[in-house]
Amino acid sequence: MSAILKQRVRYAPYLSKLRTAEECIPLFKHGQYLGWSGFTGVGAPKVIPTALVDHVEKNNLQGKLAFNLFVGASAGPEENRWAENSMILRRSPHQVGKPISNAINDGRTAFFDKHLSMFPQDLTYGYYTRFKENDLLDYTIIEATAITENGSIVPGPAVGGSPEMISVSDKIIIELNTKTPSFEGLHDIDMPINPPYRPPYPYKRVDDKSGLQSIPVDPNKVVAIVESTQGDIVPPNTPSDAMSRAIATHLINFFEEEVKAGRMPVNLHPLQSGIGNIANAVIEGLATASFKNLNVWTEVLQDSFLDFFDNGALDYATATSIRLTENGFKRFFENWDSFSHKLCLRSQVVSNSPEIIRRLGIIAMNTPVEVDIYAHANSTNVNGSRMLHGIGGSADFLRNAKLSIMHTPSARKSKTDPTGISCIVPFASHVDQTEHDLDILVTEQGLADLRGLSPKERAKEIINNCVHPDFKDQIAEYYKRAEFYAQKTKSLHEPHILRDAFKMHINFEDNGTMKLKSWD
Amino acid sequence: MSAILKQRVRYAPYLSKLRTAEECIPLFKHGQYLGWSGFTGVGAPKVIPTALVDHVEKNNLQGKLAFNLFVGASAGPEENRWAENSMILRRSPHQVGKPISNAINDGRTAFFDKHLSMFPQDLTYGYYTRFKENDLLDYTIIEATAITENGSIVPGPAVGGSPEMISVSDKIIIELNTKTPSFEGLHDIDMPINPPYRPPYPYKRVDDKSGLQSIPVDPNKVVAIVESTQGDIVPPNTPSDAMSRAIATHLINFFEEEVKAGRMPVNLHPLQSGIGNIANAVIEGLATASFKNLNVWTEVLQDSFLDFFDNGALDYATATSIRLTENGFKRFFENWDSFSHKLCLRSQVVSNSPEIIRRLGIIAMNTPVEVDIYAHANSTNVNGSRMLHGIGGSADFLRNAKLSIMHTPSARKSKTDPTGISCIVPFASHVDQTEHDLDILVTEQGLADLRGLSPKERAKEIINNCVHPDFKDQIAEYYKRAEFYAQKTKSLHEPHILRDAFKMHINFEDNGTMKLKSWD
Repeated sequence: MSAILKQRVRYAPYLSKLRTAEECIPLFKHGQYLGWSGFTGVGAPKVIPTALVDHVEKNNLQGKLAFNLFVGASAGPEENRWAENSMILRRSPHQVGKPISNAINDGRTAFFDKHLSMFPQDLTYGYYTRFKENDLLDYTIIEATAITENGSIVPGPAVGGSPEMISVSDKIIIELNTKTPSFEGLHDIDMPINPPYRPPYPYKRVDDKSGLQSIPVDPNKVVAIVESTQGDIVPPNTPSDAMSRAIATHLINFFEEEVKAGRMPVNLHPLQSGIGNIANAVIEGLATASFKNLNVWTEVLQDSFLDFFDNGALDYATATSIRLTENGFKRFFENWDSFSHKLCLRSQVVSNSPEIIRRLGIIAMNTPVEVDIYAHANSTNVNGSRMLHGIGGSADFLRNAKLSIMHTPSARKSKTDPTGISCIVPFASHVDQTEHDLDILVTEQGLADLRGLSPKERAKEIINNCVHPDFKDQIAEYYKRAEFYAQKTKSLHEPHILRDAFKMHINFEDNGTMKLKSWD
Repeated sequence: MSAILKQRVRYAPYLSKLRTAEECIPLFKHGQYLGWSGFTGVGAPKVIPTALVDHVEKNNLQGKLAFNLFVGASAGPEENRWAENSMILRRSPHQVGKPISNAINDGRTAFFDKHLSMFPQDLTYGYYTRFKENDLLDYTIIEATAITENGSIVPGPAVGGSPEMISVSDKIIIELNTKTPSFEGLHDIDMPINPPYRPPYPYKRVDDKSGLQSIPVDPNKVVAIVESTQGDIVPPNTPSDAMSRAIATHLINFFEEEVKAGRMPVNLHPLQSGIGNIANAVIEGLATASFKNLNVWTEVLQDSFLDFFDNGALDYATATSIRLTENGFKRFFENWDSFSHKLCLRSQVVSNSPEIIRRLGIIAMNTPVEVDIYAHANSTNVNGSRMLHGIGGSADFLRNAKLSIMHTPSARKSKTDPTGISCIVPFASHVDQTEHDLDILVTEQGLADLRGLSPKERAKEIINNCVHPDFKDQIAEYYKRAEFYAQKTKSLHEPHILRDAFKMHINFEDNGTMKLKSWD
């Protein structure tokens, strides 16, 4: 038992449950329902998943020792090895990593993606364990960075769905991570209270807190505690480029206009932003624009937020996960006193709560796979069928934000054509965000303000302002033909020609580009 | 001035503003932005809209005296005459009536449909008046049934979006309806408070109230008060039939199973139900089932709820509108003491609030146009383009409910085929509700429980349990072919063949039936 472990575990009875990861292997049986801590690749268990996959590889148990696996959002690289070894029968609600999306798209893993605010709730309702006799998760494996005097769990860089998982778990295994410093003091945790007894969330500002700094747990349910010395591995942030900086510039101009028009205060409303180079460019842009005293209410914080704080523009940020690179975490802990007073991590039910997102009037910014001319967006399935990562929290935010913004490059490269894929299409091949949920669409070409517009007006705004020049005539022609067709059928609300609606997607499947010879 | 008017208007200064509807006509100019009270065909202004359309007809001003018109949801038959006379340039967020949907589908009226919980908020943000210099509605015309001592407005059978409209209106005109008794005491009204100052809604039970029984107003903004002696005209309720009773039976069996499984309390959670014969059959069924002490949190109450109360099964109901037939209103007022203690009307921002719907764990039931095999639903546009009524509150409830249920006949008749239209299709021709939002689908054929299922599992459950026998083989074949195709493209998450996805819709357009000769 390491000295640091003994110091971190302030509830003595757990120390008698100290095990190695290998000693835990016999607890696991094929077909069990498991919850893992973790969100966006950080804070997930590491040594037990590694021991289990080593065991499967060594004993050729691929597909014979497999699980129903629930994680707040994506876990770390351990999950990739599970997927490669067919250890995941069922998975929800969100994942990242080629091996796991391959398992889903090969049909080896049954995956469903649910709004990140709703998933943990539905889990506590017993919806996802309704096929089981005892209605509970068999095990929750949770990474902790400390244990309090009463045995409750201090998470690491992610709260995610852990409070809910623990509340409906038959047994609990704790991975106490001693490689990282303790995150104690950074969390503000709400335990689930289900209808008809659920009270309002009291938060009226991004820095309001309820007080729970750890996850309470019935110590009798804790069957093992395992020391982990593996850190989180986060790939470097995608840097901004000309495209993403152009998008950021359009957006910042738009925010300035909104302030001028009196529709936003000078410090804006709390910001939500996703992951990726556009999100980073927007955060970089905001950090250097004239806005001051900004606040953030989001799912996940990345390295770019550290600069945002240091620059002085950002007052406070809250999320359910802080996903930093190794250098980012180093910087974070070196300045713990400063950062820990300016940020807190909540459960994902709270970070993504429609109630709070709407109350605070959040500005939500997310990147879709594609958007159609009437402002329906595909966030999940390429060409309608092939799963990327899942819906995540995008719809929690876009449905409820005061300003719902999607940003995307106007075109992406295909294998054979540098602009072979238009991100604006006639009809989204999968719809995750509806036309009722989008206020602003922005590409490097420009910004479309869709508020209060009818579908036909939206189409013109999007085609004129956002479509890549290589596709502008082609998509304008679809719209014109659809309008002509709908005149005959008296269906002029949202004109479509269903027989041509997916023609660009089909051409991409057949010929590797969305560029058509003709619409005929 | 009638004696009853004088008695109802308890704020004397308004009496000096008493006008006839005709005297108000000169106030209205082409292109103005108007708010009307009303929701689901009741509580809308009547005599001023009638005077205006008479004026347009008499002076051939069709298209020359036309307005941007916002109503909480649908207004009364006066709106139809406005549509027939091309008096509606722009309309949101929801409408009912052939003339108005004709105007939209002919391209004479620019319509956009927005979630009923969000529409009034976006209006107060200035999003829908951003094209105007003063950023305000020019007039709100509101039907009142009384005026309090301080000039505030007691609505009639609908609260709807009136509080928000009044808060952002340059001028206000009151139609005091003396044909109906006063509804004073039936309302519980929240006035809008915008971010960053918005507090939580405090409601934790369906019968919690905040106290405001009327809409406060700046008396200086009231430019006219007009007496109205026109009642609301509500068509008789669609009676239940064998199809809708079969759906109700499936649902009630399901509720009983949920109670047995411990996922619902014996008195269920508060119910939301839509309009139409299926909704009525479900309410009838619940009223005669063994459930007691039920509660309702919904948008609109209809005649069927009066029986539901009388039968003793229903404890309390709240909505934003009470849409009764003439006989229903008679019965309601004859038993005012009893009904008025069991019911309250709130603003639509509250009745449809994601915050409260999620907190209370509501059971939401709505009817779509069509649902696809992966559980995306079309609530608004026939064959993707032709607007029916608009999204309404369906997505407010389905996205946030504890149990999100859609009920639909499995097939409908086309002009030439009694089962020519399948309500289950391969790919919804318009998506308003996503696969992430639906728990249960039920047709007269059976019930599909989709909770925790992957898309492929959902497809099997829906095809096996819900599809009409006339379409079962055809849709099963689509699914099988799609699965085969997706195997090749490694897109097995949600298998589609985009080139065939709308083939049933196209066949319906071409041949009047969704029944295909073959998929080849």
